[in-house]
Amino acid sequence: MRLTYSPASPFVRRVRAAAIELGLVDQLRLERVQVAPGRENRAYAESINPLRKIPALVLDDGQTLVESAVICQFLDELAGGGKIIPAAGPDRWRVLSQQAIAQGMAEAMVSVRYETALRPELLRWPLWIADQQDRFWSGLAWFERQVERTLSTAGSRTELNVDVSGLALACCLGYVDFRFAEMDWRARAPRVSAWYRTIASRPSLAETDPRVAT
Amino acid sequence: MRLTYSPASPFVRRVRAAAIELGLVDQLRLERVQVAPGRENRAYAESINPLRKIPALVLDDGQTLVESAVICQFLDELAGGGKIIPAAGPDRWRVLSQQAIAQGMAEAMVSVRYETALRPELLRWPLWIADQQDRFWSGLAWFERQVERTLSTAGSRTELNVDVSGLALACCLGYVDFRFAEMDWRARAPRVSAWYRTIASRPSLAETDPRVAT
Repeated sequence: MRLTYSPASPFVRRVRAAAIELGLVDQLRLERVQVAPGRENRAYAESINPLRKIPALVLDDGQTLVESAVICQFLDELAGGGKIIPAAGPDRWRVLSQQAIAQGMAEAMVSVRYETALRPELLRWPLWIADQQDRFWSGLAWFERQVERTLSTAGSRTELNVDVSGLALACCLGYVDFRFAEMDWRARAPRVSAWYRTIASRPSLAETDPRVAT
Repeated sequence: MRLTYSPASPFVRRVRAAAIELGLVDQLRLERVQVAPGRENRAYAESINPLRKIPALVLDDGQTLVESAVICQFLDELAGGGKIIPAAGPDRWRVLSQQAIAQGMAEAMVSVRYETALRPELLRWPLWIADQQDRFWSGLAWFERQVERTLSTAGSRTELNVDVSGLALACCLGYVDFRFAEMDWRARAPRVSAWYRTIASRPSLAETDPRVAT
């Protein structure tokens, strides 16, 4: 299987971390691509993903899967199912919803990155930046309010000691540390911070940290 | 179950259409909310979805599901599974990937809408608008190149004569007709256009058309 990637993307990182957790990483061939708003990449748009987004997973028979949540679900089922996504019941929808929230937080911060690093300075809109940052902060506060229920894996029905929503949140926080080191999120979320210290030391996340990954 | 909604959202519309197709619409209580970038909505962020996005589905026991693809998957399983999302195999990943592409096309056009209707005129960036529109056009061309494989339901393993990716694409195209009537997408995609004429007449889509829905 080929996975299109860039080391900075929190969405790719989640898939790579999932593959490591699931013991599937040896089956993944990483294929680095450059995609960014305004950058032409016709070959990628035509052959892999018309949205010009990463990651995409190209199976050996040519079938192409897109979108990180879809790919994580595929990898989980390839590994037998129920490993990092509960197979059924309320826990399944809780974990998938939490993944969506963590992913939305990361999307908001990527949007801030585009606004502050890509868009010409005179065209930047402070209200947009504040709005997107607020989505990150609100999401962080949401996890902080209910760390036990959302991030503890003790009661979850996944086989591994981590689930895909924890990976998604860790990748979001790692992206913030990478691109917005000045945002002191730890001060605002001490319980998530304590959780993050532990999860970030797992090989799946340590090896894919955007500050060191290639 | 309560579904937070606004009649203009292509993401909510997909969930409503899915519920109609699945025979579950009588169980949905619609709850209209106003969310938009820059608009404060603390109550919604704190009690329903910290990302301030719609749709969210609040179950009778209080569990909250967020993100349209997650909610559609939940509804499909609630209806027995395999109804509008193939239950397993390559068809499952094909349909979920197609849904992600159609959803990304809609997100790109919502982004154009924000840039051209919400952002102050002097801060608009033509390159951004062109980039986002290009993602829509590339996605449309992608579906047009392979209508038979992607949009025909003859060979699919869903029980209903429609799958969630078809609903997602129809909702995206309906949104373009609603917000960007001047974009003549039919001229560039005659085969998708012919498919759309048929699918748009299904009650699930006719009743939720943003030009008439409330």
